Amino acid sequence: MFNFDFYNPTQILFGKGQIAAITPLVPSGARVLMLYGGGSIKRNGVYDEVKAALSGHTVIEFAGIEPNPQYETLMKAVAIVKQEKIDFLLAVGGGSVIDGTKFVAAAALHDETLGEPWLILEKGGKTITTALPFGAVLTLPATGSEMNASSVVTRAATQEKRAFMHRAVFPKFSVLDPSKTFTLPLRQVGNGVVDAFVHTMEQYLTYPVAAPLQDRWAEGILQTLVEQGPRTLAEPDNLDVRANIMWCATMALNGVIGVGVPQDWATHLIGHELTALYHLDHAQTLAIVLPGMMAVRQEAKRAKLLQYAARVWGIVDGDEDSRIAQAIERTRAFFEQMGVKTRLSDYGLGQDAIDAVVARLVEHRMVKLGERRDVDAEASRAALALSL
Amino acid sequence: MFNFDFYNPTQILFGKGQIAAITPLVPSGARVLMLYGGGSIKRNGVYDEVKAALSGHTVIEFAGIEPNPQYETLMKAVAIVKQEKIDFLLAVGGGSVIDGTKFVAAAALHDETLGEPWLILEKGGKTITTALPFGAVLTLPATGSEMNASSVVTRAATQEKRAFMHRAVFPKFSVLDPSKTFTLPLRQVGNGVVDAFVHTMEQYLTYPVAAPLQDRWAEGILQTLVEQGPRTLAEPDNLDVRANIMWCATMALNGVIGVGVPQDWATHLIGHELTALYHLDHAQTLAIVLPGMMAVRQEAKRAKLLQYAARVWGIVDGDEDSRIAQAIERTRAFFEQMGVKTRLSDYGLGQDAIDAVVARLVEHRMVKLGERRDVDAEASRAALALSL
Repeated sequence: MFNFDFYNPTQILFGKGQIAAITPLVPSGARVLMLYGGGSIKRNGVYDEVKAALSGHTVIEFAGIEPNPQYETLMKAVAIVKQEKIDFLLAVGGGSVIDGTKFVAAAALHDETLGEPWLILEKGGKTITTALPFGAVLTLPATGSEMNASSVVTRAATQEKRAFMHRAVFPKFSVLDPSKTFTLPLRQVGNGVVDAFVHTMEQYLTYPVAAPLQDRWAEGILQTLVEQGPRTLAEPDNLDVRANIMWCATMALNGVIGVGVPQDWATHLIGHELTALYHLDHAQTLAIVLPGMMAVRQEAKRAKLLQYAARVWGIVDGDEDSRIAQAIERTRAFFEQMGVKTRLSDYGLGQDAIDAVVARLVEHRMVKLGERRDVDAEASRAALALSL
Repeated sequence: MFNFDFYNPTQILFGKGQIAAITPLVPSGARVLMLYGGGSIKRNGVYDEVKAALSGHTVIEFAGIEPNPQYETLMKAVAIVKQEKIDFLLAVGGGSVIDGTKFVAAAALHDETLGEPWLILEKGGKTITTALPFGAVLTLPATGSEMNASSVVTRAATQEKRAFMHRAVFPKFSVLDPSKTFTLPLRQVGNGVVDAFVHTMEQYLTYPVAAPLQDRWAEGILQTLVEQGPRTLAEPDNLDVRANIMWCATMALNGVIGVGVPQDWATHLIGHELTALYHLDHAQTLAIVLPGMMAVRQEAKRAKLLQYAARVWGIVDGDEDSRIAQAIERTRAFFEQMGVKTRLSDYGLGQDAIDAVVARLVEHRMVKLGERRDVDAEASRAALALSL
């Protein structure tokens, strides 16, 4: 395997009733900004539990962080942080709220002499030296943002979706209470399972580097999602199933399965352009792009595709190409089973969308993607064409 | 699964050549105490690389931490820490050196008004409020101490082997350079594989609590050790194999596979008495105790034993009892294959040793062990009797 540097200091409080456990983790005397989204937390009880846990603190609220959180919105939160002398942030919501909070944490301490805080995204986090401390209460298992130091933010004005990463933006703690996911719309449940699945695939489906434990742990997440994902649709009130999906989603992107192995991420980068242009859900874009990418890059990924077919889907009979084709088909069928459509046409998009996405990939110089940097504009076009 | 609280802030620098990377991680201006064991680090180059990496720091050395580190020895290091105003510790060695350093880190800041620092072990860490910061350079993959907050120390005067645990004694960083394990004696390589295997079993082989990801991750470690362990004996110069064993040993006891599941640890607690009385290697005691415990507790562990048989050893044919018996036999054979004998008689011990161990378990009130607290003195006796 490759050399690596692993670090993940986020404390995880997992299980039913754990929101109350945050009280001693927020510094006493802190002025807290509580950030959330569209208000679903007021309907499912999370808002009340968080307010009760913070009853000894000064709490100011910032609502309205949207899915695919926008720079313009987040800069309003940054202004409040400065005006109200906030010194601790608490994200209450899904990956978008947590990603947005990471940006606010870094932007609040951004050195303005360098330029506007968009620079944090422009430079992928390289301008960051420090950030406000923050915690998170997760309500939607999907992105893994609750236990990593990455964030994706969109600039509405230019439709640019960019990521940054810095060790200063690990959450100090995250609460994962699976009972709070009972009220999620099925669309978000399905999206979350697909998101966690594709996060795992981006770190797993590359080429072998003699890292069998990382392989088995990635396969363990994939197998568990394949097993538990459909169950959560069939038994939406099953707390154990909710808990397992929540834990899989966190483990899929907290760094541990990706240590010392090559990583791909082409599907994500192409998907980001689909979201920016057509406002598809993040998971929808992944479900469209991944099956095509698997087929287009079949030669470079052959060894891992065969391993994936055998270990995740039990496909061991037939010649190599047929096993790979079956594995790709099973992957697409799994996404569909989770209620996430995998064809551009399912979303009313066609060849012109492919042209537009490829043009933006070229514009953004995203023409050497993937673990071998060999996914050029034509490979991206070919992958999308397989999901028309 | 059960509710849980997971936290592990240790930074891991993994791979060949990583010792040099510690330079910026030791605070500038720190007065460093470098702790090590019997001097093997001077023969394999580790000592020179560490000294080079610390060349800008004041470094004082403390050599001679023995296997199963002794309270009496460690208190000499504590005296040096106080006398020399040490403010950073660096453990260079295997689990014993790192365990010992954790004790020194806590004892150096122990509140003497409570009593002597043995209280840290007497109370399992509950008296700790803070500890000196420290890092580790690992030379022997086995115990997992490099990425957890646990330590086991023996008081030579009374032959008491006790553990403590506290979040203040997570290493700030640990270097895992698998190339530094090439010079290990085969006995230590085999011991390390058995130790990591049994750590995993203590967290896995209990009863099901609907935690499929934890199960699969534990099985992933077991499968990888079964696959890579014999290879490291056959191909001792294979860096990838060394790396995989090293990573398995760290992941086996950094907390992640044990979240939200019942844990056993009866084998360890009985094994500690064997080491204290007869000075057997820690792994030797585990190899003796575990197969017998599996058989004695077959009913309570039935579901997991069958899952273990199927997933780790591929044993799926035959009735349940025969599958379980085969799995236990394969486990014993694996330990033997790694060069670790599994019978008391292999170490010149007999029925009197069983009597002595059971007497000490009773004396230490270790009569309600295991994940169901149902392993009493007679169960321990029966388990040992199966490995005479």
